[in-house]
Amino acid sequence: MKIKLDELTARLSSVQIIVLYYLSAIIISTFLLMMPVTLQEGVKLSFIDALFTAVSAVSVTGLSTISLHETLSYTGTFILAFILQIGGIGVMTLGTFVWLILGRKIGLRERMLIMTDQNQSALSGLVYLLREILVLIVAIELIGALILGVHFLNYFPTWQEAFRQGLFASVSATTNAGFDITGQSLIPFANDYLVQTINILLIILGAIGFPVLIEFREFLAQRKKGHFRFSLFTKIAVTTFAALLVAGTVFIFIFEANHLLTGKNWIEAFFYSAFHSTSTRSAGLSTIDINQFSTPTHLLLCLFMFIGASPSSVGGGIRTTTFAIALLSVISYARGNSTIKVFKREIMPEDIVKSYIVIMTAFMLCGFSVIFLSFIEPSFSLMEILFEVSSAFGTTGMSLGITPELGTVGKSLLMTLMFIGRIGIFSFLFLVRGKPKNEKFHYSKERVIIG
Amino acid sequence: MKIKLDELTARLSSVQIIVLYYLSAIIISTFLLMMPVTLQEGVKLSFIDALFTAVSAVSVTGLSTISLHETLSYTGTFILAFILQIGGIGVMTLGTFVWLILGRKIGLRERMLIMTDQNQSALSGLVYLLREILVLIVAIELIGALILGVHFLNYFPTWQEAFRQGLFASVSATTNAGFDITGQSLIPFANDYLVQTINILLIILGAIGFPVLIEFREFLAQRKKGHFRFSLFTKIAVTTFAALLVAGTVFIFIFEANHLLTGKNWIEAFFYSAFHSTSTRSAGLSTIDINQFSTPTHLLLCLFMFIGASPSSVGGGIRTTTFAIALLSVISYARGNSTIKVFKREIMPEDIVKSYIVIMTAFMLCGFSVIFLSFIEPSFSLMEILFEVSSAFGTTGMSLGITPELGTVGKSLLMTLMFIGRIGIFSFLFLVRGKPKNEKFHYSKERVIIG
Ligand SMILES: [K+]
Ligand SMILES: [K+]
Repeated sequence: MKIKLDELTARLSSVQIIVLYYLSAIIISTFLLMMPVTLQEGVKLSFIDALFTAVSAVSVTGLSTISLHETLSYTGTFILAFILQIGGIGVMTLGTFVWLILGRKIGLRERMLIMTDQNQSALSGLVYLLREILVLIVAIELIGALILGVHFLNYFPTWQEAFRQGLFASVSATTNAGFDITGQSLIPFANDYLVQTINILLIILGAIGFPVLIEFREFLAQRKKGHFRFSLFTKIAVTTFAALLVAGTVFIFIFEANHLLTGKNWIEAFFYSAFHSTSTRSAGLSTIDINQFSTPTHLLLCLFMFIGASPSSVGGGIRTTTFAIALLSVISYARGNSTIKVFKREIMPEDIVKSYIVIMTAFMLCGFSVIFLSFIEPSFSLMEILFEVSSAFGTTGMSLGITPELGTVGKSLLMTLMFIGRIGIFSFLFLVRGKPKNEKFHYSKERVIIG
Repeated sequence: MKIKLDELTARLSSVQIIVLYYLSAIIISTFLLMMPVTLQEGVKLSFIDALFTAVSAVSVTGLSTISLHETLSYTGTFILAFILQIGGIGVMTLGTFVWLILGRKIGLRERMLIMTDQNQSALSGLVYLLREILVLIVAIELIGALILGVHFLNYFPTWQEAFRQGLFASVSATTNAGFDITGQSLIPFANDYLVQTINILLIILGAIGFPVLIEFREFLAQRKKGHFRFSLFTKIAVTTFAALLVAGTVFIFIFEANHLLTGKNWIEAFFYSAFHSTSTRSAGLSTIDINQFSTPTHLLLCLFMFIGASPSSVGGGIRTTTFAIALLSVISYARGNSTIKVFKREIMPEDIVKSYIVIMTAFMLCGFSVIFLSFIEPSFSLMEILFEVSSAFGTTGMSLGITPELGTVGKSLLMTLMFIGRIGIFSFLFLVRGKPKNEKFHYSKERVIIG
């Protein structure tokens, strides 16, 4: 049996194995969520709803077909937080630690798995990297939980309840899961700017990408020695992230100025705009019923959710760097340049093609999903369907409220989108990818008229 | 003055000059349309509506803010047909003939202009090519007008009226303009399969691309000698065109089977599906009020209008070959291949990047337009706005009816989209394109994590 398993894994690509791990995590989570101890007394969870919640939790999306508030027991919220943690940090990171704890040597094959999961292209220092990620994320979560817990003493009757809520909120924000156990997302804190600021910071730390966090830590450690150079990836990821935050805030403000923000003062208007702009990176939390936004804001949120978070982060979507490189490519072309020069480096031509392939595949995937859903669920509007599809693919979890009302086919489609959004389009393409064929010979090249 | 003009044109790229020609055609058309002789007695046409009609006619889109049926005089319909002809065949083709007639020698500079307008990459034989295009299109239109005119004797009281309607319908279908002077598109012929079949054939001949038509003529001429080889462009363009026609027909049939096509027999159902599938290539004619289609069909039509027709044809959109190459690139990648092999040839890597740049730019352009329109025109649904934007960019001209009700800003946006759709994204990028900068030195390349 051992030998057969080895033979099987040898045949599968590392991406396929990662996917198997994720699928296992989903199946185990489904059973965890269906355990009586997880649920409130008298509550029954159907298999499809448990599966949907499991996929949503492992992919840290936060879309839900049920009210967690009315479903999960006290213990259940800890179990859910644990699943979010697994999903957020990545099954492989955790798997590595199990191996380490069991004293098993990390071999080349395992390193390659981790490399694929974290999207790294260098093998060395990976185990060290993973340990750092885990320590960093847990530290961030604990600090967040502590601050929120202390502050929640103003809201909740007992300190146990305050810290339970604080811990869950911190884990949910840092992993960008966006689940809530209050039943109302962060709407009760619409005027509590401390809670919102902490949440914004936690969301950013989770979604900015692990490599960025690691580099910043190294930068801080080596600051005195000087000469620290950030990687091109970190520069592009952080710049794009910041640009999206600012653009989102500005446009939500413009679109809602004469609508939702009428009569609100500057601070209120700023927080409503900035919070939802940040939330689209992939958290999906909200401080307002987002149905109240107008159509242009809904469309903007769709676009931003589709773009998603940094690669190697807790988020989904096509990823910020993918968007940035495609955009830079268009700008370079329009300027008449044949190469992309940015931060005194040049982008590799194959990375440009890779980003376009990701975007094209994502568009086809989401476009097909929208057309298919509008066919099988004719009672929902185009806006509702587009929003839910973008939210699932971006593993954002914002919702205009139709997810609980979808049929089994619709729920399955959203589950698929959340899963692909989490593993990323590239891993998805690798999944279906075969061995290269017909690479040994070449036909002559011929020009084709384009555009 | 002559010298100054030469200096000016020497500074402008050939694309910019083509655009200037198109703009001149639009301005002249606007004045032609505002002449009293063009209009019915007592009808007044506002400047914005005349301009909109001119842009729509020169770009052979067919979107309209007015009822032509109630606006144009008898003479006016001929003037409109003439403008469609200019737009359809391309300002440059006609310009070339003016030069030829005036006995002016066609120099290198003029050849380059024509080359850009017709998207050709070889200079030789261009004048010959243009003459062939004009002869072919006019021949096709006259044959179409003759058949339709004779058949229309069944519908109209006098032979003059029958042939006027036949001529206009033939020109409108062949140039894929999609204008109608009946006031109801082809709805009166919903059960006349001869009229529909002729229209389908004329639409295909106009939208399949001039190079394809020329190659087919050469193929027929050289058939007996054997050894004729179609270009890769023709093979890809024809295959994609056919695939889109079939896919459109099948999906409209599936989406409407239990909706619009309920109770219709097979022939009726086939013609409703096939006609509207063909019409999205860029004609925009319809045999039914397209508001009656369901949401998935509307979305499908949007997608197909966005793709549009062949390059170097009367149509707009991103163009069939652009779509085909991007799709082939994703499929090749998913299969693990690093090159695209098709019809025993390989696609040039720069053509792959070109097609992605076109698609990305088009997405941003249309996405921005949809968000902007939904902001300034909040009374229209997302579906209505998306449909009108796709229709304008694809120079298709199908409408859910909101175009006449848009404000001046909305109308101007649609005009811009029609114009860019007609000249093509590539020419649009060239328009804003500067001289290459910073090409002399290179930075070192650095990898970035994507997707
Ligand atoms: K989320
Ligand atoms: K048209």
